[in-house]
Amino acid sequence: MSILVVGSVAFDSLETPSGKRERVLGGAATHFALAASFFTDVRVVGVVGEDFLPEHEAVLTAKGVDTTGIERAPGLSFHWTGSYLKDLNAADTLATDLNVFAAFEPKIPAGYLDSEFLFLANIDPVLQLQVRKQMPKVKMVAGDTMNYWIAAHRENLLKVLAELDVLLINDGEARMLTGETNGLKAALGVLALGPKSLVVKHGEYGSTLYSGGKILRAPTLPLHEVFDPTGAGDSFAGGFYGYIASQTAVTPDVLRTAMFYGSVMGSFACEAFGTERLQRTTRAEIEERLAELKAISHL
Amino acid sequence: MSILVVGSVAFDSLETPSGKRERVLGGAATHFALAASFFTDVRVVGVVGEDFLPEHEAVLTAKGVDTTGIERAPGLSFHWTGSYLKDLNAADTLATDLNVFAAFEPKIPAGYLDSEFLFLANIDPVLQLQVRKQMPKVKMVAGDTMNYWIAAHRENLLKVLAELDVLLINDGEARMLTGETNGLKAALGVLALGPKSLVVKHGEYGSTLYSGGKILRAPTLPLHEVFDPTGAGDSFAGGFYGYIASQTAVTPDVLRTAMFYGSVMGSFACEAFGTERLQRTTRAEIEERLAELKAISHL
Repeated sequence: MSILVVGSVAFDSLETPSGKRERVLGGAATHFALAASFFTDVRVVGVVGEDFLPEHEAVLTAKGVDTTGIERAPGLSFHWTGSYLKDLNAADTLATDLNVFAAFEPKIPAGYLDSEFLFLANIDPVLQLQVRKQMPKVKMVAGDTMNYWIAAHRENLLKVLAELDVLLINDGEARMLTGETNGLKAALGVLALGPKSLVVKHGEYGSTLYSGGKILRAPTLPLHEVFDPTGAGDSFAGGFYGYIASQTAVTPDVLRTAMFYGSVMGSFACEAFGTERLQRTTRAEIEERLAELKAISHL
Repeated sequence: MSILVVGSVAFDSLETPSGKRERVLGGAATHFALAASFFTDVRVVGVVGEDFLPEHEAVLTAKGVDTTGIERAPGLSFHWTGSYLKDLNAADTLATDLNVFAAFEPKIPAGYLDSEFLFLANIDPVLQLQVRKQMPKVKMVAGDTMNYWIAAHRENLLKVLAELDVLLINDGEARMLTGETNGLKAALGVLALGPKSLVVKHGEYGSTLYSGGKILRAPTLPLHEVFDPTGAGDSFAGGFYGYIASQTAVTPDVLRTAMFYGSVMGSFACEAFGTERLQRTTRAEIEERLAELKAISHL
């Protein structure tokens, strides 16, 4: 079935202990769409500027991603500059140039209206809600957010949380949302705010699913080198949600297996700068890593 | 089979977000012995002062722990004062009063010489080596260390590492030992220093076993409240090693299952101050938690 993702399609300038790159293709919707494309049809809603060239679009279309909903606007695309030199688990934002993204008003192409699954990537909760309202018949809604919206746009964010079947955030965001330092209390506190299920990501240490009163800890693959963690969370979300959308029903077992696929896709994202590694990933590699993840976590 | 543990038997004064306690029974050997006592016979070598009363010894003997090797010396027992108010994952040491521990010279009682398993808890590597040499016929040697010995007594520590079948340390210690920030590279670097297998503990996020070229990620149980993490690592080691010593052979599967028992015993340690929770743990509870750990980590 089809996933509609709304979020940023952007360029990233990055430095990590493994090197430096200028203006590589990035953005939450890009990473999510590429990761999910291995499992199901993906449609993107976003906005780009004149610097978004056919070669950038081809990265998505080569994987069958529908880019009809990527609007072109005069000016430059969203550009994020960040550094991981201090800590590979936490980006240090050096510059955020919103550019065409500042005036973004998501428009859903008519051909997208039959999408069964909606993913609200990390954007202004007002826009997330606007998209949600334009897709009243979707089967499932999942979403992401970040510290900025939690701190400064809480009221709007709470309206989004109430709409979500699954919220995917990291430890720091769960603690910030609830004021709880204990991981379990923070998770239960987040669930009390609305989402039916919650995925909390612990960076290199794995992730935890809280759903239907049950918990699943998903491991991460140990990687010899983390070249660039940008987009790892979005790739996790893409693998997680892509797998769910590829199944005939959203059962507890499907959600649990989806956690492992999320971890697999997050591992690829880290192995090169930008979207390089996801571009050359194969379905066979994905299944190999799933088997490896089971082998390193099951008795 | 029997485990001989050498390490501190001490008193701890603690403050955590859950409260404050003065001079509760603690020490690495105490936590280790209590946790391991659920699986096998345990013998302790350590030193205490005149403040170590029959009621303290009874905590150990009630679980069948052999305390013949706990030497009495004039003066006070080792006393550690620490705070977890800033971070439950990292103790802030406020005072370390070595007292009788300053002149500790481990003596192995004759009745301990047939112990098949040796655990060198976190003490001066010179003493760890001294004990190792007095037990030439043990079947297996495991041990722990800490940042202080890594930084200031590296030469001596390296001699201990060469003797170990299993080293149990935390992330920070693995990185400090090798200078590697990548978790996998740090682990491989530690293994190159001598230990045949390595357990790296990630605090609330679980632990990883590196053994025979294979990896196992063990999860932690989500806890509603971490009252006091002191001794959680030693309790992990006690559960891990106690289970190994209870088995007929040390196979890869035994090591993997031992990781889960380690995590179970570490979870109990956190649920009350000092040794309170381990004292009232039952074998049935241990098996329940093992089943729970599998349920939250296996697809």
